[in-house]
Formats: sequence, structure tokens, C-alpha cells
Amino acid sequence: MNIRQKPETLIPQSVTCGPLAGSRKIYAEPRANIRVPFREIVLEPSANEPPVRVYDASGPYTEDAPQIDLSQGLPRLRAAWYGTRDFESYHGRAVKPEDNGNVGEDRLVPPCPANVAPLRGKSGKPVTQYEFARAGIITEEMIYVAARENLGREKMLADAEAKLADGESFGADIPAFVTPEFVRAEIARGRAIIPANINHPELEPMIIGRNFLVKINANIGNSAVTSSVAEEVDKMVWSIRWGADTVMDLSTGRNIHNIRDWIIRNAPVPIGTVPIYQALEKVDGDPIKLTWEMFRDTLIEQAEQGVDYFTIHAGVRLAYVPLTARRTTGIVSRGGSIMARWCLSHHRESFLYEHFDEICDIMRAYDVSFSLGDGLRPGSIADANDRAQFAELETLGELTKIAWDKGCQVMIEGPGHVPMHKIKVNMEKQLEECGEAPFYTLGPLTTDIAPGYDHITSGIGAAMIGWFGCAMLCYVTPKEHLGLPDRDDVKTGVITYRIAAHAADLAKGHPAAQVRDDALSRARFDFRWQDQFNLSLDPETARAFHDETLPKEAHKVAHFCSMCGPQFCSMKISQDLRDEAAAIDAREKGMADKSAEFLEKGGKLYV
Amino acid sequence: MNIRQKPETLIPQSVTCGPLAGSRKIYAEPRANIRVPFREIVLEPSANEPPVRVYDASGPYTEDAPQIDLSQGLPRLRAAWYGTRDFESYHGRAVKPEDNGNVGEDRLVPPCPANVAPLRGKSGKPVTQYEFARAGIITEEMIYVAARENLGREKMLADAEAKLADGESFGADIPAFVTPEFVRAEIARGRAIIPANINHPELEPMIIGRNFLVKINANIGNSAVTSSVAEEVDKMVWSIRWGADTVMDLSTGRNIHNIRDWIIRNAPVPIGTVPIYQALEKVDGDPIKLTWEMFRDTLIEQAEQGVDYFTIHAGVRLAYVPLTARRTTGIVSRGGSIMARWCLSHHRESFLYEHFDEICDIMRAYDVSFSLGDGLRPGSIADANDRAQFAELETLGELTKIAWDKGCQVMIEGPGHVPMHKIKVNMEKQLEECGEAPFYTLGPLTTDIAPGYDHITSGIGAAMIGWFGCAMLCYVTPKEHLGLPDRDDVKTGVITYRIAAHAADLAKGHPAAQVRDDALSRARFDFRWQDQFNLSLDPETARAFHDETLPKEAHKVAHFCSMCGPQFCSMKISQDLRDEAAAIDAREKGMADKSAEFLEKGGKLYV
Repeated sequence: MNIRQKPETLIPQSVTCGPLAGSRKIYAEPRANIRVPFREIVLEPSANEPPVRVYDASGPYTEDAPQIDLSQGLPRLRAAWYGTRDFESYHGRAVKPEDNGNVGEDRLVPPCPANVAPLRGKSGKPVTQYEFARAGIITEEMIYVAARENLGREKMLADAEAKLADGESFGADIPAFVTPEFVRAEIARGRAIIPANINHPELEPMIIGRNFLVKINANIGNSAVTSSVAEEVDKMVWSIRWGADTVMDLSTGRNIHNIRDWIIRNAPVPIGTVPIYQALEKVDGDPIKLTWEMFRDTLIEQAEQGVDYFTIHAGVRLAYVPLTARRTTGIVSRGGSIMARWCLSHHRESFLYEHFDEICDIMRAYDVSFSLGDGLRPGSIADANDRAQFAELETLGELTKIAWDKGCQVMIEGPGHVPMHKIKVNMEKQLEECGEAPFYTLGPLTTDIAPGYDHITSGIGAAMIGWFGCAMLCYVTPKEHLGLPDRDDVKTGVITYRIAAHAADLAKGHPAAQVRDDALSRARFDFRWQDQFNLSLDPETARAFHDETLPKEAHKVAHFCSMCGPQFCSMKISQDLRDEAAAIDAREKGMADKSAEFLEKGGKLYV
Repeated sequence: MNIRQKPETLIPQSVTCGPLAGSRKIYAEPRANIRVPFREIVLEPSANEPPVRVYDASGPYTEDAPQIDLSQGLPRLRAAWYGTRDFESYHGRAVKPEDNGNVGEDRLVPPCPANVAPLRGKSGKPVTQYEFARAGIITEEMIYVAARENLGREKMLADAEAKLADGESFGADIPAFVTPEFVRAEIARGRAIIPANINHPELEPMIIGRNFLVKINANIGNSAVTSSVAEEVDKMVWSIRWGADTVMDLSTGRNIHNIRDWIIRNAPVPIGTVPIYQALEKVDGDPIKLTWEMFRDTLIEQAEQGVDYFTIHAGVRLAYVPLTARRTTGIVSRGGSIMARWCLSHHRESFLYEHFDEICDIMRAYDVSFSLGDGLRPGSIADANDRAQFAELETLGELTKIAWDKGCQVMIEGPGHVPMHKIKVNMEKQLEECGEAPFYTLGPLTTDIAPGYDHITSGIGAAMIGWFGCAMLCYVTPKEHLGLPDRDDVKTGVITYRIAAHAADLAKGHPAAQVRDDALSRARFDFRWQDQFNLSLDPETARAFHDETLPKEAHKVAHFCSMCGPQFCSMKISQDLRDEAAAIDAREKGMADKSAEFLEKGGKLYV
């Protein structure tokens, strides 16, 4: 397992770049210094339709001829917005050998050269988006996400109301048009967050909340058993290429400080971590040796690097541990099991819970958002919605209010493994206990019997809970429960979760969501194959599947595919029918009237 | 496209045989001459658990050393049950050249040698399972499916009530234990069907209804563009190996009569067809040339071969065609578009609707079940739940009652493309309009934007509508909208739909469903990797994914996998924790009591 890495794998060299097929990157400029990226899918001239604008989390990597130098990192676009903010630059914490797992010089991943001295907020002055929002101040980040969430809605405001009325949003409050003031108000109420560490100026801001587009997260990170820094940076870029809105770096093992360096400096999306993982590495993997002082130092280390949100398992309290004793699968959260072990061994309350005030103070100073971890989430259908799970959720609600009082942004993590009929109550209870703070769930998996396909078992649950109000869905890849995901698994996980999030947006009645479905359906009906491929979530796969049996360019305009062949294509027959009906219609002054008349008379042959 | 086939591809030679990893086939004998197959997954001795019994639709192919001769067909097990039934053997309709598309001798697939003279029922005597049920007679088929549906429920009847109470079945009436009388009563009420043509004695009977396990269908069949008889027979066996409960042969192009021969003679599951496809082939693909006489002849042709259910698009009425004129994707059902074109061209009511009485008489004589086709199902999110769709559904309700009066078994086909918030009303309206006849839907797809992944877009909708009460889910493969599925696509489609069906069974509170989830979860928690693989829907894929990073046999007992590595395995920590907790528990007379006491006092540190 301790494979000796070759030196050339110690520095990331390249990532996948260039636009997706048929797409081009555009930028909207709602204000000077604020350039909001979108992707436009350009249709064939015969469509006689404008390009379809879609949300784009992929960063500069998908520009036409991107100038990417991983050692330089991405442009520090947010730095231009800091002029009026009261941040101080200071000489940050020195990197210690244990930050990289005491790895020897020959195997040490070098730090990313793009690093600069860290910033922190001053006390008494607003630092976090929550504090700005509460103070009535609209930040550049808020303006940015407002424009980003609207997609092409300016153009279709007229029929937005009608589209909205079509969905069922379970009490969410999705506006027909997103204004910066709406964003501010939602953040001030704690109903949305913009995860945006002030030390992550490369970030293209995004918002997570029930009244915005449903977001998805991709987990990456090396483990002690496998993978390298080059692979992880590549996976980050690869995952956002296919639509991940945030990325969690769950690296364990060696070099994790420096791997994180490379990831953050090159990430246009928020990066989340679980600091207890690195803390555990620092005490040689023995949970019992964890201390508050060492954990605190790790929080500062990661906050200075620019991590945008921390999973903090402060809801795993000593008293809840015995509630898991009779579970089928015990505690399945890594962080949860680490903390449970610490609590039980020392027979003491969790230091995360006891020092929660101090954690808030640190996170506020950098605007690191809380992702309050669900350390006691169920790991099987048998354990879903049990007392351990809900006891923790109640504590997370209590901690949410403390974090808000301290000025922090907060979201709440959720399960896990939950059968369909028990999903909705999870959403309802979370909203109630946690004051409508955004919910961020892992799946949930709706059955345990399909390892190898848990992107699907969980995609079902994710779509449903997204519809019910969950703000962000953490992806699950086909390798879940079996191994570390590779590049292909990451893509499959991301596409599956984009499906779930989009299905949820449609069902909630998001006013812009159906535009893409409609454009693709028109392309399908018109046999514009290229448009159908390019409008899809994964143009490469759609095209490849089609071309397996009909590879020729001529087939890209054929009025059939290999599924039914030319004679049995219903779309073809239906088009012929429409032409014919139009002719008859004109001749007979309205088939539709005749039909209505027929139906009025009862329309039955058998009486 | 008209690739000249090699002679050796004209006769199917072999199919995939042998048991699934870790499984063995067993038979229960509720009565003499009735042998009901199950699959038992045998666990490692350390589990100290009995084998897990699962439903098994795979037929004799998965026996230990199956004696399969495709030319001989499967054993005619139902023939032994016909002794007391009033069927007559007769000289069937002669096969005509157009039945096989007038294919030349050199490319003609030979008929399957296992064919015998057909049977038909006499008038005035019960033939169909519906007629027997209405007459109060419990058939061997009913006894068979009762045993089959129970799985291992005899053994767990004691706690069945508790399990049942856990689900939400939306008014379904799932019993704790399935008796033959319950089966009879459900069939007599029209709430369930056993598709079982009397000319398909090779069939292992199965039941489709809301109060039974949710079933799935796999579509196979060659198209004019690609594939061969050998491939199609192999796909049939392959699809049931992974869990398809019925198979529809949607072949078009040449040789379709003889391909169907080979499929039925070797199929232990019900085979469905859409007779209008073959009828269209007989008139050279021109819908306008279709006639009732030719369609009638095709029904008899296929009924004599042993097709178990026919999709009949009799609900596509002339008056409904104009209702589709403003749709985004028109008519997307092949059968629907063919009939719409016929109606409009002749400006006449559908011959299927006008001759529905006669169709019933033919189908009753062989006990071919109706699958009343949804020819006007929506083909895009934009068209979901529109007037055309529901007008047809109302007509299908009307036809259901006529078919019942004629003694036929009936199920109803449903959509299609439907966003999540519009799924439930489909189920409710179907139950209401069609007198609770079983619903059989295609997906539904919950978004249009993911060609290449429509097994997933539709798997979400399928799980939901299965939960709401849909009795059978027609699979969608990754190739949907793009091409003809190959073997891998068939497997992916079947596994995805098994997930959907099982998730639905769990959510409905089926008393036997959770047994497998629990067994797998225990195996996972105990690090019994082999058991985890073998209990999964696809042991091969689960094992392969695991072995990609940890291939050694030693790792099959390792207390970690490559996902988290040894130190970060929550299950490992959780197990250690449990051991430790047990020790502390004994020492301190009950942590749980302490915990309860703590919680009673308010359990808050921050007040």
C-alpha cells in the first residue's frame, strides 16, 4: 500500500480544459468588477432559437483558450471587492511537519507557489456575509449570485408567474426574479449562505438555500491507500466541469496540507473540509489523543488557507453515543465515530460542543461557513430516523442559533440511508429544528441492496429531498461502500446528482428550470441530433451512444435512430401527422372543434 | 444497413447459464406438480444467519448444472395443470411469408423445433385466470404465485404486522401473508393479473398488482437497423438473470415471427408484444394500409404462439388526435402514432376501438392479458398530464370494464415523461378511471435533459410511482432516445429498475422487503465482504469495484476498504466503540440510563 510515488506525480501538471461540445462561455456584468459566468449552448441555425443559457460552475477552465497555470492559481477576482472591508493581513501560522503527516522530503508535495499572506476580519467590524446582510449591506458576492441565479430569466419574466404556479414547493418562497436585496434578506434570515472564505479570493461566489437553484457537492480527496495530488486537482477540475457546485476535499493520509493548497488556489468553487480528519492524522490516527488545542490549531491552519466551509460534528454528544448501541450499522460518519470514541473513552462531553463558542469566533474571522455535521446519520434502512439521529439534529438546531449570534453562516448536514416514506419528515424536522438554515444531505440512499449502484439508490432520495426543500445534495458515486472513486466515478456521480437537482428544480416550479428541457425536447422532435447532444448534461456520452450504431455524419440529420429504425419512429410519424393535420385542419375548418363537439356529446361508442 | 447476416447467426446457440455468485436455486412445493423457484443467498459461517431467500425470475438457467437446449425449449410445466380445463387442441393458422417479412430463404430464421399445435378455450367454459377467479376457482397458477410472493414470510409472520405498519402504501391492501384465496380475490376484483397464455406452458407464473411485489419489465427485440435472433434470445435470458419479471419482444423488421418462436419457447417469464408492430411490417410500413382483418389475423398468429400480453392502443381515438397538435413532442408512442395516422388519414374512428369486442373474444380464448396502451403518453416534461393523455386514460377505463365483462385480464400502461410533482396524480387518476386495474408505467422520466442517463432520470420517477401504487415498471436503458440497447444496457436497465421496485416495496411497507437490506447492512457492518457482494443486486460489479484497489483475497476480510482506508473506517471505529461501550456499560450499570437521565434534565450546555 505504501507505494513509493514518482517525483513527477508530486506536482500537478495539467487538468482537462476547453469548452463542452457546442457550448461557449459568456460573462454578464451586473456591475463593474463583477463578471458572472454562464454557459451558452448554441443551437443549429435551423432551430431558429436563441442559445440556451445554463448555470456554469466550471470556472475559467471551460473558456475557449484558457490560460491555466496551476502554480499561479486562478485570478484573485474577489480581491478587488475588499477595498472597503476591514480585513487585516498578517503573518500566518507557520506550516508544521505534522500538517503534511511528517512526510519525508523525497515524498513531500511542495506548497503551491500561488500562496499569499492570509487575511482576517477585525473584531467589531462585519466580516461574514451573514454580518453584512444583517447590517443591511449588499455585498459584491450577493450581487454576483443574484445575477447567477437568474440565468436567462430577465428575458422571460413575463411568463415566470405561470411557470412558478406549476410547481409544488412545500412552502419555499422562490421568487420570479432574484434581486440582490432578495439574496441579502435570505442570508440575513439564515435561510441561505454564500460559502466564501475571505482567503479564497479565486472563488466565483454561489449561494445555497431553499429558495435558489438546488446545488450539488462532489467529494474528492486521497486516502491513505491510494491516489496523488495530481489526481486530486484533476478530479476537482473534472467534477466542476460536469457540474459540481462545491467540492469537499476529504483527503487523509500524507501531504494533506499541501494538497489542499493546490486545490484551493485553483478552485473557482467553494471548498469544504472536515478538519477532524487532519487533526486525527496529527495524532497518528488515535481518536483518544485528540485535544481541543490541536483541533483549534487545525481550524486556523485551514481557515488561513481559504477553506470555505467546515464540517463540524459538534452535535455528537456524549449522551447520544449509547443511543447508537443497538443500531444495525452503528455510527457510519467518520467524524461522528471519531468523536464518539473520544467522548466515550474520556467519558467527557465532546470538546467540539464545549468549545463551540470559540469555534464560531475563529470561523467568523475568516467567514468560514458551518456545515454542522450529522455524525449520527443512519447507515442503513434499519437505522433511519431513529432517536440517535434526531437527538443530534435537535442539538444542531441549538448550535445553529449560537453560530448565528456569533455572526456565522450555517448549513446543516443530513442523511444518509432513508427509505422513501421516511424522507419528507427529515426535511420537515430539519426546517423546524434549525430555523430554516439550508439543509445539505448525502443522498439519501433509498435501499441498501445495490452496492455498485449507490449513485442510483441515492439519486432517487436526493431528487425527492431536493424537491421537498433540501438546498444542496452531496453526491454518491458508484464506488460508495466499495472503494475510492476514480475520474469516471466522479463524473457519473456528478451527472446523477445534476439530474436529481434539476428534477427537484422542475418539481419546485423554479421559473427557469424547464427552459432547457423544452429546448432539448424541441430538438428531439425536430431530429436536431447535435442540439440534442449539446443540450444534454453529458454531450459526449449521448453522442457516443448514438454513434455506436449510426456513426455517420449523415445520421446526425436522419429522422430516426437505431432504437426504432426509420419506419417505427413515432416522432417521424407524428411530424408527418402534424403536417397532414394542418392541411386537413385548414380544409375542414378545425379538427379541434370537431373533437370538442364529439367529446361534448359523450364521446362513447360502447354505451 | 441491410447487412447480410452470416448463417450461423440464424439459430441461437447459447445463453448465459449458471447460478449467481453465492446463490443456489431452491424449489418450494406448496402442492404436487407445483414447484416454485427461489434463490437462496448463502452467507459465511461467521454470520451465523440462515440463507436469505429472494424472489427469482431467472428460470432454470440459473440452476447449478442446467440442461438447456434452446431447440427443445423449456419444460412445459403448466401442461400438467390443464387436465381439468376445457381447452381444445386444433390445427393452428399456417405461417405466412409476410409473418417473417417475406425474407428470402437464405436469411430466414428457422422456426423453433419445440413448437406444438396450439390450444384454445371453448366458449362458455372458463379459460382466463379472471374467469376462474370470478367462478371462485383457485387455479394452480394462483397457488404458485401465492407461494412465490411470500418469500420467507412463513418464518417471520410473527413480526410481519410491525413491519407493515412502518410503510405508507397510499391505500393499498398488502397482506402480512399471501394466500391462494387472496390471490384469487384480487384477480376477481380486477386488481391483479397473472399474464399466462395457455399456449405458453413453459411459463413460471407471476402476478402483477398493487398488493404484491412491484414488478419490472425489460424490452428487447431487434430493429430493422440492427441485431439478430441469437442476440435477442440471449438478451431475454440475460434480462431475467438480473431480475426482469416480464419481457416485451418489440421486434420489428424481418423474421419477427420466428424470432418470437425462439423467445417464447425458452422464456420462463411472461412475454408481451405490441401486435401493431408486426401488422405494420405486413403492410410495408405504411400505417394507412392497415386493416382490421389483417390486425385480427396477427392477433391470432401471436396468441397461438403463446404471447402472454398484448399492448393494444385502443384508446387512441380519432377525436383525441387533434389534442396533440400543439404538443412539444407530439405523439411519442410508436403504436399511438401509427393509429393516429390511420385515424386521421381515413378520417375514421380507430379500428381497435370499433372492434374492441372482437379483440376481447380472441384474447379470452387464449388468456392473453390486455396491456391497454398509452398511445398518447407525454414525450416531454412540457406535455405531461395534458388533455390528450388524460382523455385517452378515461377511454382506457371504459375499455377495461368491457374487457372484464368479456372475461379478460387487464392492465393499463402509463407514462412517460412526467416531472416529480405531477406523478402522483397519474396514479390516482388511473386507479379511479380504471377500477384499480394494475398500472404499468414507462419510467416516468423526471427530466428531459439527460439522454445517455435516462435509466436514472426515469428510475427516480419509477421508484416514486411504484411507491404510490404502480404494479409494474417498464425499464428504460441508458440508450433510450439514442439507440438500441445492447447486453450491457439491458443489465443496467434491469438493475436500475430492480432498485426502483425494491425501494417502492420498502416504502410501501412490504413485510418481506427489508429482510435483504438488513442482511446486507449486517454483512457490511461485520466486514463480511463476500456476503455484502453476494447479497447485492449485482455481485459481479460490487466485487469488481472493490477489487480495483484491493484485489487480494486477504482484503475480503479486511476491516476497511480503499474509500477511507484502515484508520478512517467509521464501521471499524464504531465496532471498537461498541465493544468498549459494552465494557463500560457493564461497569457503570447502563450508559443508556445515564443518557436518558441527562436528556431528561434538558441536556443543554448552552442555556
